[in-house]
Amino acid sequence: MKNIEHIGIAVKNLDDANELYTKLFGKPSYKTEVVESESVKTSFFKVGNNKIELLEAMDENGIIAKFIEKKGEGIHHIAFEVENINDEIKRLKDEGFVVLSDVPKQGADNKLVVFLHPKSSNGVLIELCQEII
Amino acid sequence: MKNIEHIGIAVKNLDDANELYTKLFGKPSYKTEVVESESVKTSFFKVGNNKIELLEAMDENGIIAKFIEKKGEGIHHIAFEVENINDEIKRLKDEGFVVLSDVPKQGADNKLVVFLHPKSSNGVLIELCQEII
Repeated sequence: MKNIEHIGIAVKNLDDANELYTKLFGKPSYKTEVVESESVKTSFFKVGNNKIELLEAMDENGIIAKFIEKKGEGIHHIAFEVENINDEIKRLKDEGFVVLSDVPKQGADNKLVVFLHPKSSNGVLIELCQEII
Repeated sequence: MKNIEHIGIAVKNLDDANELYTKLFGKPSYKTEVVESESVKTSFFKVGNNKIELLEAMDENGIIAKFIEKKGEGIHHIAFEVENINDEIKRLKDEGFVVLSDVPKQGADNKLVVFLHPKSSNGVLIELCQEII
């Protein structure tokens, strides 16, 4: 694990949340992106070397809509940047973590990503990500 | 806001969680600390330039116990490091955020800290912290 790459926050309305987080950080989002595979609209803010990713559901049956329905708006996941995502998948499976996919998939922000099941990590949804070069 | 200083994770049992996060990060916690003012036991892990703080309640009516009772174990707060916490309290109050105290208090890890009410920030409990020099 190299560092926290970003923290993902589930929001009901991306425009409203962009306005709020612009006030919080004192500067606007530097990027918005639609991730079709996850049916989410995202926007990114930089804070030092880290990023905050806001996520709005585009599909009322999608993962973000269901999260908000169950828990309300709030922090959805932590993403850690790794050197080699395939090595980390293997290492963490061997350590007993439940990895949600054997192979990483294309995520937002030009990354290969995979998630660990929160039940195997104290209720925290953990994303591993590796920049696609 | 300089950077994400740490992410706080509420856990039921600190020893079990320490074991799990040691496996996740491939290295042990570098510090444990009791914060009497918050009735919590904490442990810290370093990930790159960021920290993960695990929090176990020492008081069943305390803030962490109540959080777990309501939402289950999971991410409790994001802490952002700021240059001048008093200036930030003033700036964010002027921007409409609900700051939970007008003056910062002593938190874990040699920091002055203050929290923003999650209702004013999309369900996210935000901590501001400044190193005590």
